[in-house]
This record gives sequence, C-alpha cells and structure tokens, in this order.
Amino acid sequence: MIDEEFPVASARLATWIQRYREGLRRRPVAPTTTPGAVRAMLPAAAPEQPESLTAIIEDLDRVISPHLLHWQHPSFFGYFPANADLASVLGDMVSGGLGVQGMLWSTSPACTELEMHMMDWCADLLGLPGQFKSSGAGGGVIQDTASSAALCALVAARERASDGAMNARGIGAGAGGRPLAVYASSQAHSSIEKAVRIAGLGSASMRRIDVDDSLSMRSHELARAMRRDQEDGIVPCFVVATVGSTSTMAMDDLASTAKLCRQFGAWLHVDAALAGCAAICPELRALHDGLEGADSYCTNPHKWLGVNFDCDLFYVRDRSALVGALGIEPEYLKNAATASGEVIDYRDWQVPLGRRFRALKLWFLLRLQGAEALRGRVRASCGLAQWLVARLAELPHIEVLSPQRLGLVCLRHRDGEQATAGLLAAINASGKAFVTHTRVPWPGSGSQASCTLRVSIGNPYTLQSDLEGILHLLASAG
Amino acid sequence: MIDEEFPVASARLATWIQRYREGLRRRPVAPTTTPGAVRAMLPAAAPEQPESLTAIIEDLDRVISPHLLHWQHPSFFGYFPANADLASVLGDMVSGGLGVQGMLWSTSPACTELEMHMMDWCADLLGLPGQFKSSGAGGGVIQDTASSAALCALVAARERASDGAMNARGIGAGAGGRPLAVYASSQAHSSIEKAVRIAGLGSASMRRIDVDDSLSMRSHELARAMRRDQEDGIVPCFVVATVGSTSTMAMDDLASTAKLCRQFGAWLHVDAALAGCAAICPELRALHDGLEGADSYCTNPHKWLGVNFDCDLFYVRDRSALVGALGIEPEYLKNAATASGEVIDYRDWQVPLGRRFRALKLWFLLRLQGAEALRGRVRASCGLAQWLVARLAELPHIEVLSPQRLGLVCLRHRDGEQATAGLLAAINASGKAFVTHTRVPWPGSGSQASCTLRVSIGNPYTLQSDLEGILHLLASAG
Repeated sequence: MIDEEFPVASARLATWIQRYREGLRRRPVAPTTTPGAVRAMLPAAAPEQPESLTAIIEDLDRVISPHLLHWQHPSFFGYFPANADLASVLGDMVSGGLGVQGMLWSTSPACTELEMHMMDWCADLLGLPGQFKSSGAGGGVIQDTASSAALCALVAARERASDGAMNARGIGAGAGGRPLAVYASSQAHSSIEKAVRIAGLGSASMRRIDVDDSLSMRSHELARAMRRDQEDGIVPCFVVATVGSTSTMAMDDLASTAKLCRQFGAWLHVDAALAGCAAICPELRALHDGLEGADSYCTNPHKWLGVNFDCDLFYVRDRSALVGALGIEPEYLKNAATASGEVIDYRDWQVPLGRRFRALKLWFLLRLQGAEALRGRVRASCGLAQWLVARLAELPHIEVLSPQRLGLVCLRHRDGEQATAGLLAAINASGKAFVTHTRVPWPGSGSQASCTLRVSIGNPYTLQSDLEGILHLLASAG
Repeated sequence: MIDEEFPVASARLATWIQRYREGLRRRPVAPTTTPGAVRAMLPAAAPEQPESLTAIIEDLDRVISPHLLHWQHPSFFGYFPANADLASVLGDMVSGGLGVQGMLWSTSPACTELEMHMMDWCADLLGLPGQFKSSGAGGGVIQDTASSAALCALVAARERASDGAMNARGIGAGAGGRPLAVYASSQAHSSIEKAVRIAGLGSASMRRIDVDDSLSMRSHELARAMRRDQEDGIVPCFVVATVGSTSTMAMDDLASTAKLCRQFGAWLHVDAALAGCAAICPELRALHDGLEGADSYCTNPHKWLGVNFDCDLFYVRDRSALVGALGIEPEYLKNAATASGEVIDYRDWQVPLGRRFRALKLWFLLRLQGAEALRGRVRASCGLAQWLVARLAELPHIEVLSPQRLGLVCLRHRDGEQATAGLLAAINASGKAFVTHTRVPWPGSGSQASCTLRVSIGNPYTLQSDLEGILHLLASAG
C-alpha cells in the first residue's frame, strides 16, 4: 500500500467497522472458539509480497470477527463497559497519522499541552478537587490503565516515605530503616497487589482490610491495622480507597480514610477506575466526597465514557513526588525547554519512556459528542439498572445485592451456589447476553463469599429489550 | 456524531492525514513553540454540546500541527526513527473499531491468538532462536515499550532468583537472604535503571560496566563485577546486553555475556529496541549472534519497521517465570479456558490488566507491505548512512564515530565541544533537518565523554537530497 491509497483504504475499513457495529445485535455476544482454532486458520509465515486490502477484509470476516467476545455488543454485560465510541476512534486515527512521540514537551509541544489541558477539562467535568489541577503543585497524566496508575502512585508514595532512599538503595533501605505497609479493602482490585509485588514490597506487606455489609472498608479496622504496624516499627505508607469495586461497585468512605492517612502520614490513592467517570453527572458526584484528602486519584474514560482503550486519567496532588520517583534524564533527552523548568515532561510520570498522542481521542470524543450527551449515557445506564432491579423484584427465586449502585446489578439464585453458576452458564450459552461472575460475602454472611452474577450495564446502545433476554432466562430458572 | 457518520468523517480525516504526510517536506521539522502557547489557544472548558468535525479539523491545522515536532518528516534525524506506516494505522483503526479487550484468551480468543501468531511470524522474520517460539516453554507478547519489557524481565528474573520469595516477602527477602545485583553497560538505556528503581532494587544495586573503544561492554569487567558481588554475598541476578544503544548503536557481545550469565546463574535480557528489527535482513542478522543464550529479548517494530506506536515485541525463554511473577487471578476473571491450561492469558505477561488488539497493526503492516519491502527500507536507511559517512569524509573539520552502524551516524566538530554544540543548534534552527545529541567517550579518550551529534536515519521517505541540508550546514562550519 502506498500513502496515496490511504483515504480509500480507510474508507473501506470505516464502512466495515460501521457495519460490524450496526450488525452486533445479530451476532451471539460470545464466541464458541476452541483453543488454537484461530491460529489454525492463519498461514505459518508472514507474506513476502504485499497482499490486498480485500484479502485482509475477508480475513476480518472469516478469521477475526467470529472469534471475538463482542465488547461493543448492546447485550454485553460482562466485566465492565469498555465503550469505544467511534468519535474517539477518529481521534486515535489522527494520533497514528501524526505519528509523534510525546515523551518530552519538546518532542511535540502540542502533544503535552493538549494532554495537560484535557486533564484539566476532565477534572472540571468530574468536579475533582483543586489539588489535581495543573495550575498548582499537582496535575494529571494519561496512563494506559488503572493498574499502571496504582504502580506509579505506589512508587511515588514509597519515595515520599523514604525520602528518596528507596530509589537509591532499594526497598531494603526502608523508611529510616523501617519496612513499609500497604492497605486496601478485601474488595480492592487485583492490580493493587500486583503493584505491591512489582514495586518489590511483597504481598506480605499488604493488609487486606475487612469490609462491612455494604462491602466498604471498615475504617476502624484500617485504623487498627495502621496502629498495629506503627507499634511494630512498620511504616503505614500507602492506602488505596476504592470508589466502585470491580466485583460489586462497592464504595469506600474517602473522608474517614483520608483522615487516617493524614494521621499516620500515609499516601492516599483513590481507585475510581470505573465509577469515577459517573461524576460527570453532578447528581452522582457524592461518590467523590472526601476526595480532597487524597494524594492521587484515577478513573478510566475508556470504560463507561467511551474513549477508545487505553485512557486512564491519573492525577496527583504533588507532581514532584512522582517525578522524583520516576525521573531519569539521560544526555540524549536533555533539551532547553526541560532545563528551563517551564514545561512538563510526561516521560517522568509513567513507566514507559515513549508515549503516543492519546489526548486526541479524548478531545475528539468530548468535542464530537459534548459533555451533555455523555451525562445522558451515564444516566441511561443507571436508569436501566434500576429498571432491571425492579423487574427482578418480581422473581422470588432471585436475590439482588443491596445497595445496587450505578450500572451494576449483582444477584444470586436463592437455591445457592450451584443454581447461580447454572444461571451464568445458561445466559452465556444462549448467546443473547454475556455476563460474568464474582464471589463476595453477602450481607449477614460474615466473610463467607458466595457465587454472584454480575450484570454490568454501560453500553449507550443497550435498550430495555436487550435486557429482556437475561430476564427471561432468570425467570425460567424459577 | 452518530455511528452512521463514521465512514464519511473518517474519510475526511484520512484525507487530512494523507495531505499532512505529503506536505511534510514543506514544513520546518521542529516547531518554535513557547511553553503554554498551545494551551492559550484552547477554550477553558469542555463543550457542553457537540461541535462539528470541521471545527476540529480547523484546530488540527491551527492549534495542533504547527506545534509538533514532525517525527514522520523525511528530514527528521533525531532520537530514533518512529515510523508509523499508514498500513499499520489502518490496523489500529480496526482495533479501535472492534473495541475488544485481550486481557484473557477468553475475553477475545482471536486477539490472543493473532498476537501469539504475529510473535511467531516476527521471530521467524528476524531469525530469532527457537527458545522464543510459542511452541515450546517460551513465547512472546506485545508490550508498549522496551521500558516495560525490561521491567517485566527484571521482575521475572527476581522471582526466579528468589524462588518466589520476593513476590511474597519483598526485595528484603533477597535470594536466600542475599541481596541481588543488576548489570548493564555504561551505554545501556535509562529504562534499565528506571526498571531497577521501580522494582525496588534501588539504583545502588545496579553495576554500570565499562565499555571498550567500540562502546561494547567489556566482558572481563562484567565477569569481575559478578565475581566480586558473589564473593560479597550478593547474587548476580540480571544482566542486560544492549544490541544497538540509543546513543551510538553500540553492540554488546551476546555470546560472551551469555556464557557469564550461565556461569553465575543470572538472567540475560537482550535489549535490541531499535537495532533488532534490522535482522529482518539476513545479511544483518549477525547482530543477534549468541542470542540463543538469552532468557529474554525485545525489539520495537514501532521504530524502524513502521508499526504505529506502541508495539514492542518481548520474548521469553520460560514463560512460567514471567507468569509466576505477574500472575494474580481474582475470582471475576476465572473462566473455563484458563482453568483448562490450554490457553495463554496475556494479562499475566505485562503490568496492566487491560489490553487492546495491538496485533492487528502488525498484521496489517506485514500483509499490506510484505516482508521484502520492509527489508528494502532497512537496506535503504543503511545505504543512506554509508553515503553520508562517505560525504562527511570530505569535510576535514568533521570526525565520524567509528564503527558506524546501521542507520546511525555519530559525529563531532574537531574544534571541540562548543563547535559541536554550535552545529546542533545551527542544524535545528535551520528547520531543514532535526538532529539530537549525546555525550559519549570517543575512542582513545578513556572515560572522558564528549558532545556528539547523532544523525539517525530510518524514515522510508528520506532521500539523499534530504541529507543535503545537513551536509551543507556541516560543510559551512568548516
């Protein structure tokens, strides 16, 4: 392919994509692929000579699209919404077309400045507290995922606690020789423990704090754990509060957690990967109550809001802690703008050095859709979830986890584990919808976890009629 | 924007992109932006109502494109080539259009299987040793960058050395209680030290090994450092050999390094971020001599080969070490395919959980261009570099660093530091070309580093005439 053919080729693929999206309702949500089936259709070696776009499009139809779980399907209710609005796909295409690197301000000023600006736009759209705006000591950066955001936050916290000693001499140096501890609720995302491991603290340094009946972290348990560590000569370093757990959309109390973090000098990171974007609606903004006490925060517009993956918004109160932890300046990256201190170099805000122009996809989405339409999507998802809960109340054999929050409905069969697992299998085998499961302690069951079916609603194309399939299957299991 | 408008909108943007690319020679390579200038042109808040694509395209022309360093410009000779072939941009667009998540095999089988297949295709195209193919105990995965690949390799090495103790109890646990050390040449990429810091080992655990006159790591110095550590009760854990350093394209000797790693039980990671892809040409494959002794390897098709950033190919000999270090399985990700042990779940091969369908852009590039054309590009870049060196030999005041390797030409003014820095400034101020600098010890200067100008050639559109601008400026400084 030569560049002159790009407009025509892209138009053909855009039409293919638009038809794929439009035709999703006619496809089963999940594939029935067996391991190795896709590879068996592919030639053993790369082609020596160019092939035609027609051949590739045929393969998209034959090899690729039948073997996908269709995350954009209106009846996809698994895991979390991963909406990739086509407006943001356009922005991503421009990013690829420009092909610039944003590791330094000087390696493309517009790349860094649009990103800073989008981070501030989003801080305002979500009503985030002022410490995260770029005008002060804080600021924001686009990370790939909340996992990477958590790792960066932890590394910054580690540095602050040890006054730089850990960058220099490793975890063994401790904070004044004392080891560090990390705290999160039993419902926190697995990426927190993954970050703790990668950062070299070891899983044993992580305290899993018990939750109450609404699956929120118990503040007095957190306080007790931090106090005990302090008495044992261990430094309470890093606390993660979750706003909207993956399993059940559980919410930790930010205000009381922040108060404890202040008291013990710990870094508070707030993981609002999925739920945080709901704060684009002023009436849902209470989920961020107490956020002004946080040192860092992240949320993922690539989930509910419609930005093409990957786009995690990561904010810090004090960017110097982050840059202190992650900044290394080799000679070949030195430049006048960096030396002036007047610019931000985002390479020091993340694990990788290179970075693409990801702000464009956010900019395109916000401009082509407008904030009001995005609010409408969040409200529609929440409305559908409430409608589903009302309909489920008519099914005596189905129990819904309470409180139900935002677009997520968690439920189980009153006949127990096996019956709930049977529901999961039946819904997914039907091809009419796709749901996933979790195991959580239901109110009154102590720490005894039970199999729970999750119906995660967030796709802007989902209609009540798309939920009828699930309702029908749930009803027939009665 | 509604989905029905996507084909038309994408066609307009594709035309804009194609014209941008076509018009690059008429633009200065680097912008003259002052800090804050881009933000000053942007409204303070996100729009409430949708805006038109026309308004956005106007802003691409007014706010964005004049304030970029044009990495795709035929006279961009800075840093490293970051070719984003439009064939791969098409694949990336399809990835966005499909909008699937590839964290597990089961979350989209075609996403994982095409990636495995592309990793095997590339292993064959580059002539990599068999331990990296997916048919055995090893395999490959697409990472965002070589920085992340180095971090993952280090974490896997740490686990192997400590038999899992560090995942459980942190760096302090050591390997049987003994601390770990990491080794790389003084010319290794800054991402290695960044990984060492993030992984909690601390910069002090990193040994910077001296180089010889060709800037390759001195094997006997490496051996001495490892032996000394061993005698001091420190475990030689992780060695990075560089194939093509960023500064000067320096090459470490893989065979002798691998032999030492075997002897001391250390993990050998080979960082061939830029140069590795040159091995697509059989006549350049000697740069991988000795690679069969490596435990992990990475190279970046998003540099020279033309894949739209980000696409780092990361291979390991033993995938169980990597998965052991990075694998955590929360309940909500459990599924039958994973339990069967018949599939690979790439979330355990990387830091983030979520992952996009990046194999598509590699697949599109390889199919739409064909391997032979990609070889032609590598050969053309090397040919231009040799041509430039021959022309520079005519300039008595210019000294070229020898050996010159692949597409990189390093040079300095014989009048010394200030004269060389002056050349850098003059070339970049001309707008006719963009180059960057480094500081390295030239042959015979001991460890005394001097300012060195780098001319990095790799863009497939670069012609001899694009290098004339540099030659003219270099000549006139005589």
